Amino acid sequence: MEIVEWKDRRKNRGITDSGLTHECGVFGAIGNKHWPCNSEIAQFICIGLEALQHRGQESTGIVVSEGTNDYHYHKGMGLVKHVFSNESISKLTGSLGIGHTRYSTSAKSEQVNCQPFVVHSMHGALAVAHNGELVNAAILRKQVLDRGVGLSTHSDSELITQALCLNPPDGEVNGPDWPARIRHLMQLAPLSYSLCLMLKDKIYAVRDPYGNRPLCLGVILPPNQELINGEIGNIQPEGWVVSSESCAFLSVTRYLREVLPGEIVEMTHAGLKTIDIVPPPLDKSLAFCIFEYVYFARPNSLFEGQEVYAVRVHCGMQLAIEHPVEADMVGSVPESGNAAAFGYAQQSGIPLGELLTKNSYVGRTFIQPNNRLRQMNVALKFSPILRNVKGKKIILIDDSIVRGNTVGPIIKLLRRAGAKEVHIRVASPPLKYPCFMGINIPTKDELIMNKLKNTKEFAKQVDADTIEYLSVDGLVKAVRKEIKPTTKSVGHCTACLTGEYPGGLPQELDW
Amino acid sequence: MEIVEWKDRRKNRGITDSGLTHECGVFGAIGNKHWPCNSEIAQFICIGLEALQHRGQESTGIVVSEGTNDYHYHKGMGLVKHVFSNESISKLTGSLGIGHTRYSTSAKSEQVNCQPFVVHSMHGALAVAHNGELVNAAILRKQVLDRGVGLSTHSDSELITQALCLNPPDGEVNGPDWPARIRHLMQLAPLSYSLCLMLKDKIYAVRDPYGNRPLCLGVILPPNQELINGEIGNIQPEGWVVSSESCAFLSVTRYLREVLPGEIVEMTHAGLKTIDIVPPPLDKSLAFCIFEYVYFARPNSLFEGQEVYAVRVHCGMQLAIEHPVEADMVGSVPESGNAAAFGYAQQSGIPLGELLTKNSYVGRTFIQPNNRLRQMNVALKFSPILRNVKGKKIILIDDSIVRGNTVGPIIKLLRRAGAKEVHIRVASPPLKYPCFMGINIPTKDELIMNKLKNTKEFAKQVDADTIEYLSVDGLVKAVRKEIKPTTKSVGHCTACLTGEYPGGLPQELDW
Amino acid sequence: MEIVEWKDRRKNRGITDSGLTHECGVFGAIGNKHWPCNSEIAQFICIGLEALQHRGQESTGIVVSEGTNDYHYHKGMGLVKHVFSNESISKLTGSLGIGHTRYSTSAKSEQVNCQPFVVHSMHGALAVAHNGELVNAAILRKQVLDRGVGLSTHSDSELITQALCLNPPDGEVNGPDWPARIRHLMQLAPLSYSLCLMLKDKIYAVRDPYGNRPLCLGVILPPNQELINGEIGNIQPEGWVVSSESCAFLSVTRYLREVLPGEIVEMTHAGLKTIDIVPPPLDKSLAFCIFEYVYFARPNSLFEGQEVYAVRVHCGMQLAIEHPVEADMVGSVPESGNAAAFGYAQQSGIPLGELLTKNSYVGRTFIQPNNRLRQMNVALKFSPILRNVKGKKIILIDDSIVRGNTVGPIIKLLRRAGAKEVHIRVASPPLKYPCFMGINIPTKDELIMNKLKNTKEFAKQVDADTIEYLSVDGLVKAVRKEIKPTTKSVGHCTACLTGEYPGGLPQELDW
Amino acid sequence: MEIVEWKDRRKNRGITDSGLTHECGVFGAIGNKHWPCNSEIAQFICIGLEALQHRGQESTGIVVSEGTNDYHYHKGMGLVKHVFSNESISKLTGSLGIGHTRYSTSAKSEQVNCQPFVVHSMHGALAVAHNGELVNAAILRKQVLDRGVGLSTHSDSELITQALCLNPPDGEVNGPDWPARIRHLMQLAPLSYSLCLMLKDKIYAVRDPYGNRPLCLGVILPPNQELINGEIGNIQPEGWVVSSESCAFLSVTRYLREVLPGEIVEMTHAGLKTIDIVPPPLDKSLAFCIFEYVYFARPNSLFEGQEVYAVRVHCGMQLAIEHPVEADMVGSVPESGNAAAFGYAQQSGIPLGELLTKNSYVGRTFIQPNNRLRQMNVALKFSPILRNVKGKKIILIDDSIVRGNTVGPIIKLLRRAGAKEVHIRVASPPLKYPCFMGINIPTKDELIMNKLKNTKEFAKQVDADTIEYLSVDGLVKAVRKEIKPTTKSVGHCTACLTGEYPGGLPQELDW
Repeated sequence: MEIVEWKDRRKNRGITDSGLTHECGVFGAIGNKHWPCNSEIAQFICIGLEALQHRGQESTGIVVSEGTNDYHYHKGMGLVKHVFSNESISKLTGSLGIGHTRYSTSAKSEQVNCQPFVVHSMHGALAVAHNGELVNAAILRKQVLDRGVGLSTHSDSELITQALCLNPPDGEVNGPDWPARIRHLMQLAPLSYSLCLMLKDKIYAVRDPYGNRPLCLGVILPPNQELINGEIGNIQPEGWVVSSESCAFLSVTRYLREVLPGEIVEMTHAGLKTIDIVPPPLDKSLAFCIFEYVYFARPNSLFEGQEVYAVRVHCGMQLAIEHPVEADMVGSVPESGNAAAFGYAQQSGIPLGELLTKNSYVGRTFIQPNNRLRQMNVALKFSPILRNVKGKKIILIDDSIVRGNTVGPIIKLLRRAGAKEVHIRVASPPLKYPCFMGINIPTKDELIMNKLKNTKEFAKQVDADTIEYLSVDGLVKAVRKEIKPTTKSVGHCTACLTGEYPGGLPQELDW
Repeated sequence: MEIVEWKDRRKNRGITDSGLTHECGVFGAIGNKHWPCNSEIAQFICIGLEALQHRGQESTGIVVSEGTNDYHYHKGMGLVKHVFSNESISKLTGSLGIGHTRYSTSAKSEQVNCQPFVVHSMHGALAVAHNGELVNAAILRKQVLDRGVGLSTHSDSELITQALCLNPPDGEVNGPDWPARIRHLMQLAPLSYSLCLMLKDKIYAVRDPYGNRPLCLGVILPPNQELINGEIGNIQPEGWVVSSESCAFLSVTRYLREVLPGEIVEMTHAGLKTIDIVPPPLDKSLAFCIFEYVYFARPNSLFEGQEVYAVRVHCGMQLAIEHPVEADMVGSVPESGNAAAFGYAQQSGIPLGELLTKNSYVGRTFIQPNNRLRQMNVALKFSPILRNVKGKKIILIDDSIVRGNTVGPIIKLLRRAGAKEVHIRVASPPLKYPCFMGINIPTKDELIMNKLKNTKEFAKQVDADTIEYLSVDGLVKAVRKEIKPTTKSVGHCTACLTGEYPGGLPQELDW
Repeated sequence: MEIVEWKDRRKNRGITDSGLTHECGVFGAIGNKHWPCNSEIAQFICIGLEALQHRGQESTGIVVSEGTNDYHYHKGMGLVKHVFSNESISKLTGSLGIGHTRYSTSAKSEQVNCQPFVVHSMHGALAVAHNGELVNAAILRKQVLDRGVGLSTHSDSELITQALCLNPPDGEVNGPDWPARIRHLMQLAPLSYSLCLMLKDKIYAVRDPYGNRPLCLGVILPPNQELINGEIGNIQPEGWVVSSESCAFLSVTRYLREVLPGEIVEMTHAGLKTIDIVPPPLDKSLAFCIFEYVYFARPNSLFEGQEVYAVRVHCGMQLAIEHPVEADMVGSVPESGNAAAFGYAQQSGIPLGELLTKNSYVGRTFIQPNNRLRQMNVALKFSPILRNVKGKKIILIDDSIVRGNTVGPIIKLLRRAGAKEVHIRVASPPLKYPCFMGINIPTKDELIMNKLKNTKEFAKQVDADTIEYLSVDGLVKAVRKEIKPTTKSVGHCTACLTGEYPGGLPQELDW
Repeated sequence: MEIVEWKDRRKNRGITDSGLTHECGVFGAIGNKHWPCNSEIAQFICIGLEALQHRGQESTGIVVSEGTNDYHYHKGMGLVKHVFSNESISKLTGSLGIGHTRYSTSAKSEQVNCQPFVVHSMHGALAVAHNGELVNAAILRKQVLDRGVGLSTHSDSELITQALCLNPPDGEVNGPDWPARIRHLMQLAPLSYSLCLMLKDKIYAVRDPYGNRPLCLGVILPPNQELINGEIGNIQPEGWVVSSESCAFLSVTRYLREVLPGEIVEMTHAGLKTIDIVPPPLDKSLAFCIFEYVYFARPNSLFEGQEVYAVRVHCGMQLAIEHPVEADMVGSVPESGNAAAFGYAQQSGIPLGELLTKNSYVGRTFIQPNNRLRQMNVALKFSPILRNVKGKKIILIDDSIVRGNTVGPIIKLLRRAGAKEVHIRVASPPLKYPCFMGINIPTKDELIMNKLKNTKEFAKQVDADTIEYLSVDGLVKAVRKEIKPTTKSVGHCTACLTGEYPGGLPQELDW
């Protein structure tokens, strides 16, 4: 039954499996008690969401509160800059709020699925923004439906919202105990989410017990003040923020720390407070998504105390160690392979240079192109730089290869531009398994390394001289190289590479 | 507390009290077992909704089912002809479905409020289309919230939907008993609604126990067949329909009968079946909204066995008896007063003719017009016909007067066109009280006859020679004149005219 | 060659020949020297265009001037109320301006064809709004092209504009002599147009020498002042207006007179001045389009000193004289036949009443409806009033019948509603010939009375008891019945009815 | 008078002087005689325009011909991918066509200004796409207006079109001699343009006599065939293309050569033919815009036989020679400074690395942001890479600095990220003069190096350790370094850097 449910969920979300896609970004902000109750908090969140736009371009939304149950919100399909006009922002008055960006392509009912999700409950208004995917959504959904609740969408957000509204099993005597409800939900559904919940005058920032999805905290500084050794000290902050990634902490905002796996942080006008830390189920270890490092996050974001860019450089260096090759120049598929190419060049001593230039305006696709037009469309996106390619032996670095559709045409372009040798180096291991924790991965049959015997066959197919991947061990090593010993309980999810799911999950599924 | 709630509901719906507005139209259709499972049923419903467009122009939606729980729907803001494109219709494949048109002006969250409302419940998918207004929404809302359900809108539709999903008090042993749930809801909330509920392969057509809102049933005939004495007889129908008004029964569709007050009709691929008839609370009588006759319904619709047009002619005749006056010509404010003017002319023997012509394209309004522009805008809507006005004593019939804003400018136009005398006759009594059953009536202070001593003062204010209204008794008499004795248990709601609410309702409210 | 040209013009305009369509409305206004130079003149014109909206719903535009060559304009596809927002209007600052509404369905380049057309010439800016159609456009177009001018559209407006810009044949010594240029154009192209030309601080109102299209003048009165016997007298007007029809003279604006056939009226901040009156070519008489009376104009407009409504009543009376029949009730196809039905009833003594009610929201059409849906769509537009139809002998009056597509379905509806006899009376003669002067008439083969032997055959085909048309003589008689003897040189174009074209035009064409 | 005209032109084009902006891209394609007459040529052009999108994002258009005078076109505001839907493309059937992309922000009449411009002339239809700006537009405009032509826009395209339509001075006896007309226009207006003209079944590709704007030719190869030494040889091409830049020659299309300065190339279904080469006025030398190398062109485009990327690398190398500095790392402002940074690193031996990462989704701007929000918005676009910045001495390379608004905030970000020293190196000389040949440059007062004494003052103002520019001689040297001796008559316009205009142009203007 669950298998059906998995397939159904994907179908119902209109997933077309066109590549790796993120599962969203969340951002919340709350001013201190002096923060003016105008639209500035909404603008603040809006800028934060733009910095998280890479995590989802399908839809976006912001909900703000003036500290009462009368929320203002605006949601819509498309990019942050298109959904929020000056007019729509100006109506979002408040002193706290949460926002969301959502991934993927659209289906007929998508407008309904825009987050944050808002409901009126018997204990006031509740808004929910969610990054991740409930692994046991089917079970939780059944529980909610069995209580007699109708669900109007297939989204995890609505499910989480209604699950929080239903009484906690042991009842509540003196009004609602939201932390208890959140804790209860986390026990029912330990994987995977980073959540922002808004309740009247509070925001709860919650990360699942496995720490699978990222979430971090920041502080809004007063003018001309600065953290000392990363500590607030005597500063009176102007407000606090929570974000999927620290790349959204801009200008006056400073990074404080990550929300810990399983942590419930209460954000009020007075500051941040840890309410509880829910551990993962017995005998399970932490499982932060390793692909956040490899592919999803912005290079300047911080996870586990280190910069993503630095990790990617280490991946490139490790790749040079594992798969060296003689060449005249190392370059990347812009811009995703830049950091790894830098690392590979540094480790190997081969000069670093641009091999391809990218056209950022590309987008038109024709319904039924003939072959001539189809080839032109591919060529439109990347163009070889003759100076660095012609007559040269080159190493082209990419961060990952999913279906392998693009590498062939790119090599063709490079060959036609006169490349003498083309060596492909991939700064992560081959993708082989599905993700049930918020990342869309194409079906098994579409993953290139499930279709081919080995990288030799792959190289032959796409006319590369060689193709080599980083090993799983190499990746883990690169990821952990700079993590400080003080960082608690490190653990990474490599399920899509190894099939080893956190919590011993459904790797037996015929996905 | 309830008072607050009433005000809040209106505020939350973005009601701007700009005039009398309808509360929606509902339409449902189901084919027989041979009906093809393509988009024809949706097109069928679409045309039906266009015929009900006068009941609501704000938003519209259609939900169809292929007999499973996998519904297809499309909803949007605006007129039926704008919301449904050939493309969007083509995706609505099924063999049964329900649709809705909604009234009024827009507020920020209106998209969310488009009906039909659809949820997935533990017992399958449920779609609800609703015309009316729950008088005790506050109480019902509290009950639903107390059960731990979060409500995402302020709409009665969502409230009804969740109320139906929650278990009935006495539990269900062998799966869901939807009729029992509907019955239970009707007992909790006896006023006011006409509902179309779709459940997988069935539609339930439900009218509230007071019969406050209209709802009627029809049949889709095979080619070249016809009802005999209004009976189906041996005909094998191609399908069945349910509609707020019979004006939506077009071409191949025939009127069968009204859904009775309190009746639950089950519509399946096999036909219509009465499941139950829930009576109104003890000692209460039926209360069909008399303003459906006066103002809302299309003239060719049938209620209680009679044509609305005929009732309006009787109103005009009664008006001529109650308030005769000598004149050269009787005419109407087009087109709402046409039938009553016809009746007045017939009864009085005064010739019937066009006094005003209406510009149907009007619409632009300027933000801050000066006086010159404001006057032009009024003059743009109605223009006097010189031939019938100049040098003549005229009687101008309107169906109702709410605020009295338009009558003054119209009389000015007629005077300038050379009218010798202008007598205003209104084919319904003065509006004096609010409606809590689905009609938006401006606030007490805005109703013209609450502001003035008598019709003499009114006439003086707007420069009419005389202004007279039909009496309440006269209206009731006109309405009942042709109702056949066989029609069961007649009863009409005149609350907005008399303050006598069905069920002894909140006339003490400080609205 | 010209024949090809005619067909091409129609093709190029995207004409789909779907019925009779207007050729546009023009409206101009100029304030006196105290008129403020803000956006009021544009709002004034905007309201005027709304009153002329029935003359064209395809596109609209307004150009205003502050008295310099720096014009402001806004044009767009659609209704006046949709094209002009408060924002777009607010930018149209000036003290004089002209506007336009355009008919018909759209083709790919329609945006380009929106009027008024504006160019910069060596003698300043020129704006042109045009109602009508140049009969000898092909010749004039060749003349303009031969002078080496490129034309970017197929519109007569651009052609007129460029023809006016080219030097007049005899040259100009002291700057441009616009009246001479206009006169020259009128001699080259005597048929058919009503024009508003704006040149810096002047508007020229021009009607073609045949007087084929209507155009009239009005005055904007100061507050609380009134014309005496239709004369301005000592009043200091606030401004002057020109319009296709007087129905656009609202509130503060009063009708003065028609622009005479061939007249060039100069409108300045100081008032109106006749510059010249160009006679029609030798031996030709005036030819005001008789279908303006029958069909196009609003009933309250004035032509040749009489109200259109009154003429239509006379048509109905004449029809009753020519084609009497016994019946219980006379009614119209709303709303176009209203006036004639009134006349028929008055002449015949048969009671007047509503037989059909019209649904004004209709609009959706499906791409490939089956028969069931097609019939429903027709039924959606008109519904019979049982009270006046059932068991009755009825006479249904329409103003004209073009293709005869609608009359059959309407009779079917009336029969099904129980009509005992249905007699169709048409208040104009059968359409038999094409118009080359601005009206779109379907092709010869589509005109119903070109396809059938006689009205008996027609009646049989559509299941009417009888169908009869007004005679051409009867129409002319009705039109001229009330024209005052003081009205100069009456003459009407009946080409579409008789094939007799003004100027002996191309009736030999194989259109 | 001309000065006024210059200012007016800019005003009329709605130029807001917000930075350096391109003047457009042109693209044309014609199939051989076997090319199918469907929408493929339009799709072909559409992809070509996407590759030229960097030259203009304001509007775009395509005109195609089936070899007759009946052109099909589609134009609109916005990016290529938004303007052309599959539906609009499918209507553009033909075997030859031209397209255009246009730069800049919008003004009210912009829709009118979309190119290509199409007119019907006495000798058939003419379509014009134009990149550049007519230096003597005022004179040419007066000539056209004096001939009695009205111009509906202020665009050079319309002006060129009408000038071509007017007879050539010496008349034409046997039909139109388009090459003679083009030649005549080139003599009247020698600066600056690259043109694509379509006439029925031909395209003329024209470059101005100074060679100021780029234009090049390509060939569409049959499957599996390839040029030998850049020559067509025995290959039967499938078609021919012309483009502003060779970066638009994709996949099956190969670069042949540049259109020579002053050359008129006729493109027919049979191939390419040089009609004439019009020399620049006496004593004038060629003047190819040097900023095409510095800033505008895509790095993979070819000008004068060399790759733009290579020239930019030389600029970086030359910059390292002229302004060396000790540092730990060289990086660029992505992506415009990439090639120069590569050159600087190579020449200096300092490691190359990413210092900043760019957020490509940025776009929202708030109407009245407070200071906090304004700073966040700047920080949103570029983020420092800690790994390469913290504790390091860095050199940041940009291709050019116009107003100097961004460099300050970027240095602030780098300092806050821990940079020890920040040295700015600009790979082109300071902009000091206006361009009248198609590039929008801010007003004199806004150019940073016109406001400051020297680079020391600049460095101090923005908190850089040092700022240095490439010299004019250094730039010219870098540009000419690899031009083959066989390339004819090299000459570059450096007017914006030196004030020396080609043709001794209006450097005395008070711009």
